[in-house]
Amino acid sequence: MAKVSLGAKTMTLPTPAWMIGSYDAAGKPNLMTAAWGGICCSKPVCMTVSLQKPRYSYAALMERKAFTINVAGEADVAKVDYCGMVSGRDHDKFAACGYTPVQSELVDAPYVAQCPLVVECKVIHIQELGVHTMFVGEVLDVKVEEAAMKGGKPDPLAIKPIVFAPEDRHYYGLGVDLGPGWSLGKAIK
Amino acid sequence: MAKVSLGAKTMTLPTPAWMIGSYDAAGKPNLMTAAWGGICCSKPVCMTVSLQKPRYSYAALMERKAFTINVAGEADVAKVDYCGMVSGRDHDKFAACGYTPVQSELVDAPYVAQCPLVVECKVIHIQELGVHTMFVGEVLDVKVEEAAMKGGKPDPLAIKPIVFAPEDRHYYGLGVDLGPGWSLGKAIK
Repeated sequence: MAKVSLGAKTMTLPTPAWMIGSYDAAGKPNLMTAAWGGICCSKPVCMTVSLQKPRYSYAALMERKAFTINVAGEADVAKVDYCGMVSGRDHDKFAACGYTPVQSELVDAPYVAQCPLVVECKVIHIQELGVHTMFVGEVLDVKVEEAAMKGGKPDPLAIKPIVFAPEDRHYYGLGVDLGPGWSLGKAIK
Repeated sequence: MAKVSLGAKTMTLPTPAWMIGSYDAAGKPNLMTAAWGGICCSKPVCMTVSLQKPRYSYAALMERKAFTINVAGEADVAKVDYCGMVSGRDHDKFAACGYTPVQSELVDAPYVAQCPLVVECKVIHIQELGVHTMFVGEVLDVKVEEAAMKGGKPDPLAIKPIVFAPEDRHYYGLGVDLGPGWSLGKAIK
């Protein structure tokens, strides 16, 4: 057990590979890929996503105070990567990906019809941290593709979310079911 | 493409299954499992983790202004689950798991010698959100087990991090390498 020090790196696992949906000032739907984010509160249900100021989506989140989190299936990994490579300033990423934007009925942001899992968020807190600004979004609804539901719950093995690994900078699929929470630990208890 | 509305749920994918290391008032090392967290800034490098006030670790983070993020390999999934089932008030979780606490030289918190990936954080911002308090930790170092390094980078397939799926409440392994970021997207571009 000898450890190597990497220094102060944005390295932990797993991190998500979300596409953040927003409208620009002209009302054009846009997507950007984000791996800096996570759930941050159970009541009110909140999630964070962090953006750099130069990102085209930054002004959209600031002005519309809304965003969607779109979780693509692993078959769409090239689309997820593309949405992190080009800017919405000069690209229509929905069109390039063949994605259909759906206007959320709850927040002023679009979501991707083709994504198996989408989360609609209203910005309730903004925190400047340094090169990133952290947006805390209150979740108003989570929508899951019917075909990805199993026994009334979303089935991760049907959603097939993409995992991003910082440093390595590769995307990974979801692996095998390791077992149920609040249960496996009884063996130690 | 018909979607089911789940309402405001703490549901997105992937979420982590971290063990948060801290010292209690008496200096006893403790661990708690946390899935509400993520990276939030690249410079300074920061990560969030959210805790409920009744958690024994809450006072530790508040008082010591420090924590570690310990990423266990999938073989330790029962230990990770256990650390979310019992309280450090009346359990020595390091001992129960057979884990060796290592005093960080950088922050006032212990990390798990046996974990392949550990992150040492100093609390720089605290945000009350509701039932959870979000702690923003500045990362002072990331340490990776030598055997989990490959070509100078941490190898996710050697670290084998655990992914937690909310709602489903199961743990999952990391799946196959889907390919490199800032590269797959060229096919769309």
